[in-house]
This record gives sequence, C-alpha cells and structure tokens, in this order.
Amino acid sequence: MNQIDLMRELHISSDKKIVLLVMDGLGGLPGSDGKTELEAAKTPNMDSLASDSILGLSTPIAPGVTPGSGPGHLALFGYDPLEYQIGRGVLEALGVGLGLDPKSLAARGNFCSLDPATHVITDRRAGRISTEECARLVNKLKSIKIDDVDIIIRPVKDYRFALILSSDGLVGSLTETDPQRTGVKPLPVKPLRKEAEKSAEIINEWIGKAFEILKDERPANGCTLRGIAKDPGLPSFSDVYGLKSCAIATYPMYKGIARLAGMEVVEAGDTIQSEVETLKDNWEDYDFFFFHVKKTDSAGEDGDFDRKVTVIEETDRAIPGILALKPDVFIITGDHSTPAALKSHSWHELPILFYANNIRKDSVAEFGERACMQGGLGHIRHLDIMPLAMAYAERLTKYGA
Amino acid sequence: MNQIDLMRELHISSDKKIVLLVMDGLGGLPGSDGKTELEAAKTPNMDSLASDSILGLSTPIAPGVTPGSGPGHLALFGYDPLEYQIGRGVLEALGVGLGLDPKSLAARGNFCSLDPATHVITDRRAGRISTEECARLVNKLKSIKIDDVDIIIRPVKDYRFALILSSDGLVGSLTETDPQRTGVKPLPVKPLRKEAEKSAEIINEWIGKAFEILKDERPANGCTLRGIAKDPGLPSFSDVYGLKSCAIATYPMYKGIARLAGMEVVEAGDTIQSEVETLKDNWEDYDFFFFHVKKTDSAGEDGDFDRKVTVIEETDRAIPGILALKPDVFIITGDHSTPAALKSHSWHELPILFYANNIRKDSVAEFGERACMQGGLGHIRHLDIMPLAMAYAERLTKYGA
Repeated sequence: MNQIDLMRELHISSDKKIVLLVMDGLGGLPGSDGKTELEAAKTPNMDSLASDSILGLSTPIAPGVTPGSGPGHLALFGYDPLEYQIGRGVLEALGVGLGLDPKSLAARGNFCSLDPATHVITDRRAGRISTEECARLVNKLKSIKIDDVDIIIRPVKDYRFALILSSDGLVGSLTETDPQRTGVKPLPVKPLRKEAEKSAEIINEWIGKAFEILKDERPANGCTLRGIAKDPGLPSFSDVYGLKSCAIATYPMYKGIARLAGMEVVEAGDTIQSEVETLKDNWEDYDFFFFHVKKTDSAGEDGDFDRKVTVIEETDRAIPGILALKPDVFIITGDHSTPAALKSHSWHELPILFYANNIRKDSVAEFGERACMQGGLGHIRHLDIMPLAMAYAERLTKYGA
Repeated sequence: MNQIDLMRELHISSDKKIVLLVMDGLGGLPGSDGKTELEAAKTPNMDSLASDSILGLSTPIAPGVTPGSGPGHLALFGYDPLEYQIGRGVLEALGVGLGLDPKSLAARGNFCSLDPATHVITDRRAGRISTEECARLVNKLKSIKIDDVDIIIRPVKDYRFALILSSDGLVGSLTETDPQRTGVKPLPVKPLRKEAEKSAEIINEWIGKAFEILKDERPANGCTLRGIAKDPGLPSFSDVYGLKSCAIATYPMYKGIARLAGMEVVEAGDTIQSEVETLKDNWEDYDFFFFHVKKTDSAGEDGDFDRKVTVIEETDRAIPGILALKPDVFIITGDHSTPAALKSHSWHELPILFYANNIRKDSVAEFGERACMQGGLGHIRHLDIMPLAMAYAERLTKYGA
C-alpha cells in the first residue's frame, strides 16, 4: 500500500490544527564566518521554540537530488514527486495566476529568432526581449482562433509566455518543439501515444498560425513550446488527509501548486506580516495551513547572503503571532535549499522543527543546519512530514488490529 | 528483489544464536518529571549492556503510523506489514489460542441487540454482556451445523467471540456484517470477488441459524461478524532465514502470530521469570528466540506510568539470566510505543539495542528514548532488525560477486 492510500485509509477527524511554515529555499551553506544564512540570522523565537520541539534534517526528494519548486512542494504535501509530476507548462501557467481545468493543456512558450530564409533558430531566447515586448507580441497572438478550442495566452517575463488550450479530449503525452540548440528548425509537436494525435494536430495548428503572425517581427519572429502538460490530477488534501486546508502565499506559483492539491487559496497580501494577519483571519475556518515565505529563495538565487539572513529574521519576528493562535502542530522547514553561495536550488537537507504535544523533546536549542544534525528526528524525508504532522495532530487511527 | 527474497537467497548456516527481547509497547513519553517510563525505570542491567552495544531508534511501520499488535510484530519478524496483513478475525482466533489451517476462515464476532420487531441494531455491543453470558450464548451457537463445514466457536471477552469455519474452497475476500452504527439491520456478508461467493453463502447460512437460536435472548439477540479472513500465508522463518525458531510468550495472541511465521511455540508459564526458565530449558534446541513481555503494553494502555516502570524493572532483572546463556546476538526493543500518557499504542519510535560481536560500540551508556537519539544505529525501521540480526549472527553470505 502506498503512502497516499495509507493516509486515505487511516485519517480520522480531530479539532487539532496544523501549521506548516515553509521558508522557500531555507537551507544554506556556510558564508565567510562559517555560518549558514539560518545560523547567522538572529532567530530568538525559533531558537526558543527549538527548545520545546524535536528537530532534524529532511531530504526533499532523494539524497543528492535538487528539487524544482514543484517537486519540493509536492513532497512537503506528501505526494511522491517521483510519481506525481507537474509539467513545466502547468507550473508556468500557475505562476502567472492561470487556473487549469481537466480539459486544459498548458505549455511554456519561448519567443525565439529564426533565420528568415531557412527558418533555423538563430537565438533560442530572441535576444532576451523585454517583458513589454513580450506582452505586445502575446497580444498579437491572442488573435489566433481554432475551432472548438479555448485559448488563453499570457506574457510571463522577458521572452517567456504561458499558453493554455482547452478542449474535449486533449491529452498531455506530447513532445516539445524546442530543439535545445540553434541552427536547426523548431520541431513539430509529436504524440507520444495514439490518444494524443489530435492534441498534437491542434497545437501544431496554433504554432503554424503563430509563425504566420510573427514572421515580420524582429528579433522575435518565432517561438517554441515546452513542457506541454495537463493538471497532474493530485488526490486532494481533503480526500487523502481529511483536512480542510488553506494556502497562505504571496506568489502565484505557490498558490497554484496548493490549488492543484485541493487547498483553498486565500488572499494574503504581499508581506510576511500580511500573511500572519491572513492566518489569524482564517484561523477558525481550516484544519491545515500552508504558510509560504518566498523571499528566502529569491535572496538565495541572487547570491545575497545578507538579504537571505534579513528575510529569515523577518520571518522569525512573525513566529510569536503564529504561536499566539496556539497551533497544535507547528512545523518549520523549507521546500529545498537555496544557498547564497550557489545562487541556485540545491540538494542539501532542510532543517526541520516539529512543535506539538506528545513529542519527545531533544537537546537541540537552536534552529540551524548543524544544530539539527543532533536532533531527535534524525534524518527524514519530506514525504514523512505530513504523516508525522497527522500523527501529532491525533488525526491517524491505528494500522491493523 | 524484496527483502524476504533477499534473506531467502543469502542466509547460510551458523551455530550462532539470536535472542529478540520484545517489551510490548515499550516506547513512552515524558511523565511529570520529564522522563519516559523507560528513562524513569531503574535498569542497571540494560544500561550496563548499553555500554557494550550499539543503540538507536526504530520506526515500526512508517513515520507517523501507529501499529496494531499484528503489524508491529510482522515488522519485527521482517515481514512488511503494508504487504502482509493479518485479518482481525485471525488475530482474535489466535488470541484465544485457536489454530488456523489453510482451509480456515476466521471472524471476530460481536453479540449485539436487535429490535425484535424491525431487527435493526439497537446496541452494537449488547450492553457489554459479561464474559460468562458470552460463554453461555456461544455454547448454544455450537449446535449450528453446516454440511461439509467444520465450525469452531469460542468466547473471547465481554460481548466478543471468535468463529472459525473450515472447508475446501473458502476464500477471504468478504465484507463485514457490522454496519458500524445503530438503527440499521446487520448487513449480509458479500463476496468482494467471484471466488468468494460460496464462502459468503456459507457464512450467511451460519448467521441465519445463529439469529434463529438467539432470537428469544435478551439483550444479545443478534450478532455481527468482522474481519473475516484467512491465514495470511507468511513465508516461514525457517524458509526465509534458515532459523530454527522458538517463541516464548505468555499471551495467546503473540504465540499465534509467532505460529503464523512458522515458529515453534513452547509453554512458557505466566511470568517473565518463567519465560527465562523456558529460554534456558530450550536453549540448545533453537537458533532464534522471540521473547515477548506483554505487561509493559497493558500498563501503558491503562495509563499507569508507574506500573509500566515496574514491569520494565522486572524485565531488567531478567537480563542477567538471559546473558548467562551467552546469546551471540541479543536485541532489546518493542513492537510499538504505548505511552502511559496516551493510554494507547502510538507511532513513536522504539529504543533499540543490539548486543553482539562485531558491533561498533557507540557512546550511549543508557537504554532510553533520548539516549538512543544519539545512538550509533541512528534511525532504522523494524524491517531492518532481522537482516541486522542475521548479519551479526554471521548467517548471511555476500550479495553478488
């Protein structure tokens, strides 16, 4: 029996509430003074909480594997990211706030430059055109019509756009059109199984019309489509865990991933403080709160150690407001590491803290990567987090007689 | 290759003996002075042994999952409890000392009260009738005959009884008759697959006859059947591990589970001391001894912290007698946690101690939950215990060239 089925079978009702605080890209690497971002940050509230908690380190997907944002969050929510996959097109659509229904196929689009004579790609990113130029071109592409297909297209950033086609019978087993190198033509979309033939035809029809519209543009006189995919059809949080779940996030992509898992997404403003207010306002209405802090990751991606420290400290100041609500289970961790030293996501384990009744407190009195190495939780996987949260919330019955 | 197949392939013979001491429900939670039952207990012998051992914490099934007695022991014996399942009816039969053969279907029965006019259930437990009344009713039900079917029925406790039907072709894919609420009639048994149709007919015939016999009784004028199941067909210990195995236990259910795994069950009296004597008496005849202490769990279930401490201390006094036999591998752990604070089984990890040659001694000098957080074994699963025991007993050959 897999974990999803097990949770579906064992969950029972309870009035206990769970808060999962995810600092995106939390895990770090030592800076010049030998401390990670989290260790360097002044976090009196998290450290105090650590003394009353059980801590450890958690591997997002598998040792050595660096997660994208999608897989990192799927694992946090208890969906094995090696089994459930969110296509790049779906993530891109979610990232600009587009919803998907079961009839929708989503793709990530890249404007590119083609040689006018031979149609081979000369620049896969069309000279990284501005977001404004992208918006102007997307506006022109909105004129494309295909019989019985609803089409939504939205600029993302620079040369990137999101495309959603909705129609009966669309299937997501399709190849990409980006050949991943210059000097060759964009590829046609091909079906990977027979049922996807009609879907391939429709997308190729859209591409043909787009090329016609773009042909006199410079530098963006073509485009490629990647990650053409449908909603992964995740079993819903309420079905799997029996939890009425609320997502508090400031960035569209994380709201979108939460929505895929069947959480309700509430308007949470732009700041950690507005997110705490949102948590308070919605406290009575939900059992589970996914509380997402984005800017730790952004700072890490920018290689800005000090800014990441500042965001962690800002989050620490939000802790008393969360604890004042008396969550029965409070978990602090991240979806993946984003060490400023690497300027990118990484595979390193995440520090994790479980605060709840019925824990065995360990001797760790600081929330930090190296302190967590001595934690009583040991080394867990992100997939273990939801079952443990459910157990501490007294929301799982016994397995077997 | 799964673990059972791996063990079957790799085991070799040796004269090394293994003792697995299982204190049922051993794991605990801190009491008023911040110590768990095991930490509060005076265990000079286990602590001394800890100094010469390697220790850690073990998860019975999966993080957050609370095991019943069946799954907890299956995991200890190396059978994945998510793959092998012991039906409730089988456990109930084992619990009153009934054996099962491959032709047997076992069910747990509950006497219930029915409205005499409408036959809807008015009390699912018949007012919790006494064990004596249960025995009187069971005695009446012994008169039921069905062609070509051997029937055994035995009172368990209060309103519960165990029923075993044996015949050729019986199949265990059957629904239960308990609707789990009052105000509705007991359900008929239905087959979950075609092969079980005849089995459903036979059980429904038994139920019809039982209702006829019970109809003038009060309050127990009906009954329901749950967990109708066959022996799970575990691969035997001798086949998987090449071990001649002996179960030393005082309670029928644990003897029964051991018997399902193909162990020989010897008469062990009622006390820990009589179990130690039994171990001595049988020492020469077996390779593996499953030594089960029940009363730690009973005390935990009763919420009696001090009594659980007392049972642990009594077990500690038995350690020198076990060590005097010079077991080559001696393991101390539990099947699951039963913290007195929760008065029930729980998901918490079990402290575990491995004493053997060729171990790497760690720095832990106390057998307790928090001390074991620092143990050299780290965090393992119960499924890992038998392969490690086999290895330390020099009973596994190399895998691959």
